[in-house]
Amino acid sequence: MNYKMVGRFIAQILAIETVFMIPPMLIAFWDHTILSAKGFGCSMTLMIILAAILFFFCRGAKSRFGAKDGLVCVGISWIVLSIFGCLPFVISGEIPDFIDALFEIVSGFTTTGASILPEVESHSRAILYWRSFSHWLGGMGVLVFLLAVSGGEKGSGFTMHLLRAESPGPSVGKLVSKMKQTASILYVLYMVLTVLDIIFLLFGGMDLFEACCTAFGTAGTGGFGIKNDSIASYSPYIQNVCTVFMLLFGVNFTCYYLLLLRQFKAVFKDEELRTYILLVVASIAIIALNIRGLYPTLEETVRHAAFQVATIVTTTGYATADFDLWPGLSKAILLCLMFCGACAGSTGGGFKVGRLMLMVKNLRRNIHKVLHPNKIQKVRNNGTVVSENVLESTNDYMAAYVIIIFFSFLVVAIDGHSLMTSFSAVVACFNNIGPGFEMVGPTCNYGFFSPLSKLVLIADMLAGRLEIFPILILASRSTWTRK
Amino acid sequence: MNYKMVGRFIAQILAIETVFMIPPMLIAFWDHTILSAKGFGCSMTLMIILAAILFFFCRGAKSRFGAKDGLVCVGISWIVLSIFGCLPFVISGEIPDFIDALFEIVSGFTTTGASILPEVESHSRAILYWRSFSHWLGGMGVLVFLLAVSGGEKGSGFTMHLLRAESPGPSVGKLVSKMKQTASILYVLYMVLTVLDIIFLLFGGMDLFEACCTAFGTAGTGGFGIKNDSIASYSPYIQNVCTVFMLLFGVNFTCYYLLLLRQFKAVFKDEELRTYILLVVASIAIIALNIRGLYPTLEETVRHAAFQVATIVTTTGYATADFDLWPGLSKAILLCLMFCGACAGSTGGGFKVGRLMLMVKNLRRNIHKVLHPNKIQKVRNNGTVVSENVLESTNDYMAAYVIIIFFSFLVVAIDGHSLMTSFSAVVACFNNIGPGFEMVGPTCNYGFFSPLSKLVLIADMLAGRLEIFPILILASRSTWTRK
Repeated sequence: MNYKMVGRFIAQILAIETVFMIPPMLIAFWDHTILSAKGFGCSMTLMIILAAILFFFCRGAKSRFGAKDGLVCVGISWIVLSIFGCLPFVISGEIPDFIDALFEIVSGFTTTGASILPEVESHSRAILYWRSFSHWLGGMGVLVFLLAVSGGEKGSGFTMHLLRAESPGPSVGKLVSKMKQTASILYVLYMVLTVLDIIFLLFGGMDLFEACCTAFGTAGTGGFGIKNDSIASYSPYIQNVCTVFMLLFGVNFTCYYLLLLRQFKAVFKDEELRTYILLVVASIAIIALNIRGLYPTLEETVRHAAFQVATIVTTTGYATADFDLWPGLSKAILLCLMFCGACAGSTGGGFKVGRLMLMVKNLRRNIHKVLHPNKIQKVRNNGTVVSENVLESTNDYMAAYVIIIFFSFLVVAIDGHSLMTSFSAVVACFNNIGPGFEMVGPTCNYGFFSPLSKLVLIADMLAGRLEIFPILILASRSTWTRK
Repeated sequence: MNYKMVGRFIAQILAIETVFMIPPMLIAFWDHTILSAKGFGCSMTLMIILAAILFFFCRGAKSRFGAKDGLVCVGISWIVLSIFGCLPFVISGEIPDFIDALFEIVSGFTTTGASILPEVESHSRAILYWRSFSHWLGGMGVLVFLLAVSGGEKGSGFTMHLLRAESPGPSVGKLVSKMKQTASILYVLYMVLTVLDIIFLLFGGMDLFEACCTAFGTAGTGGFGIKNDSIASYSPYIQNVCTVFMLLFGVNFTCYYLLLLRQFKAVFKDEELRTYILLVVASIAIIALNIRGLYPTLEETVRHAAFQVATIVTTTGYATADFDLWPGLSKAILLCLMFCGACAGSTGGGFKVGRLMLMVKNLRRNIHKVLHPNKIQKVRNNGTVVSENVLESTNDYMAAYVIIIFFSFLVVAIDGHSLMTSFSAVVACFNNIGPGFEMVGPTCNYGFFSPLSKLVLIADMLAGRLEIFPILILASRSTWTRK
């Protein structure tokens, strides 16, 4: 393995994280919250020193870089990012326990939004800003950001492997031939949408701080709120803005790029987008019918149904209503949407609509293969043939997904909570959603879990965000042995 | 499709079912339960007439027979078997509702053991015998039985396709070169083990009727009891006999054949068997530790832990304790064992230990493939290379499995029961277990579900027993269209 290259890479990640800690540091000074300022100051100093040391020792790294190095880099980067990202929480004393702080920041970077805090309003604005900003950074990917600003190293394999490892979805579409440009386009689109969201929220009467934090959580499909009741106490207008933007951030960003290129037909015919829209509309309709007795007006019923469907399918995790109190059918639909997730190539987590479609198409193909064994049958997506490799890796992904969920479930169950609590906690963390059912429902938090369970859930969040393999690779012995 | 051949086949199935209804008929006469006798008499008459008509119209069928015909035959046979098998329940008035009766008999033939009856002791012995016997017949497969006695038609493809479609597990091991002999060996082993079980139960003080019914349920890994509290009120000796025999019937029957051939080494080194034993022992140990406070003595704790692990992992469904009241970890282990199931080639249901092993091995291989992309890596089982085809079909099976479980869950959730009730009902039916959690726990029954849910659960039981594809094929439009 190319250790020097990995080291340099981590140094860059630390440098970027330091830069991104400047705004919360300024907020801390502005608010005169000295402890928070101290937290950020100490963390930044530590990171700068470490980055300098790493740069010094990893001079002159060779630029040879394989798929394995890419995966290892992504896995380690995210772990480093999280360990240093949680230091302000610990040093400022706002979340004194290290594992709790780590849980909180991993939940942030992976855009899960599961919190161990029983309430948030007593915390300093600097800490709340950093918490919400971690969603924004994690949503599109910090490595993608690095590529967009630095252009990566010379070897083209390097950037491709990184982008592939960090981007969600079964296959990475190169938007343009150069990876640096692809990364830049993605980030520009992401920023524009975020700014639009902030503007709409400002119109609803939020102040700039609230609007930024809420938009960060929406853009990254994260879900950390800055109010104890998440979005419930805001006006219907703001709730609807959140619903719309959550759904928008759940769309494959390639679609927006195609819209910019005025290729409307391609967007309109995109099978994943159509399935996603159909899924969302159908779920909202069925849930609205199912919960119609619970709310006084039709508008409120539909608003709550739409918000909760959007927050779950995009794996954001904001809440305006406690869906754990809804009838069984609505809860069952939400549980299924938790697994399903949003579109590939969006900031949302979960299994991804596109992957699910490939799985269903593959199943249908297999039935036909039994019926007509001599006919060659291909699976198509948007008119083009899907390679057998992609189909296999989709099924492999499902297998890994199921195995990890069950294994984690068993460990978390040691705590002895109800089956649905343990199971939905794992599902909600692994799919980067946040709230689950029963004791981890929308009005609850993850603080009561044992340190062991929290560590497992942290690993699940990372594995879910990075689509399993970068984390599994780190856990494999042969990654670390020389031949 | 070869309709005449399918017709002849169904006629044979009806004839066999008629023969198997003679013992309960005799019991009904012996007990002077006239209504039960009428139920069996009318059903048998109807079946004989229908079989005769089918034989008449399907004379001179060509013996060409493909994989598709095999799958269709298996699917239709099981549906016909169930529809006529439930008639005695309806006609005798013991289960007057047709859907309820169908649920009960499908639960019997598929060896699920989920009952809609709130209590069983008030029912006639003839009906109870038929209910338990359906487990025995369904356990090894009625088509395998047909092959064993009739030798099948001349075309060898016919018998192979049938056996492959009805036998559980990722691949069918031909024990000997001729399929008829393989089927006979399987049935002889099955009968010998059943008789042994009966003898052990008789020693425990059961009368012949009780011993036969209990042994049928054990052998088929079914789980219909003849007491309201299942096995709980029997002596510890009988409970332990049941535990041992349930576990024995969860072993691949090939192992017993190898034992007869004195190939002890092959059995000892069988990876699936070793994993199965390890899984059972580990689960019993952890659960016994977890529930140690609930029972007065160590013996009782281990006995209940062992019984419940055996009943769930082999997907039998007998009960001596209400595991729904056990702590979270024990319940989580049992829920995972529900999915896992017993060995391939046994009478147990579920995903199968062997399949799970292939999935894990495949996952490990895929990680290694990323790390060493230029090295050819093969998955091995018992020392021999597993073909990529088998690995793919294992993953395909997992995909189909997950999709069907979620779809069924959504439909059953319309009833509005708790998430764990709906989810575990689907899991317990699809994996042919019987009891689930909460409202479908070991002390409860399935009577309260709506007819729609019952129909979905019936389809799930059949799909689970026949390993999905024969039922999916029946539901596919292109099976029924001519080119």
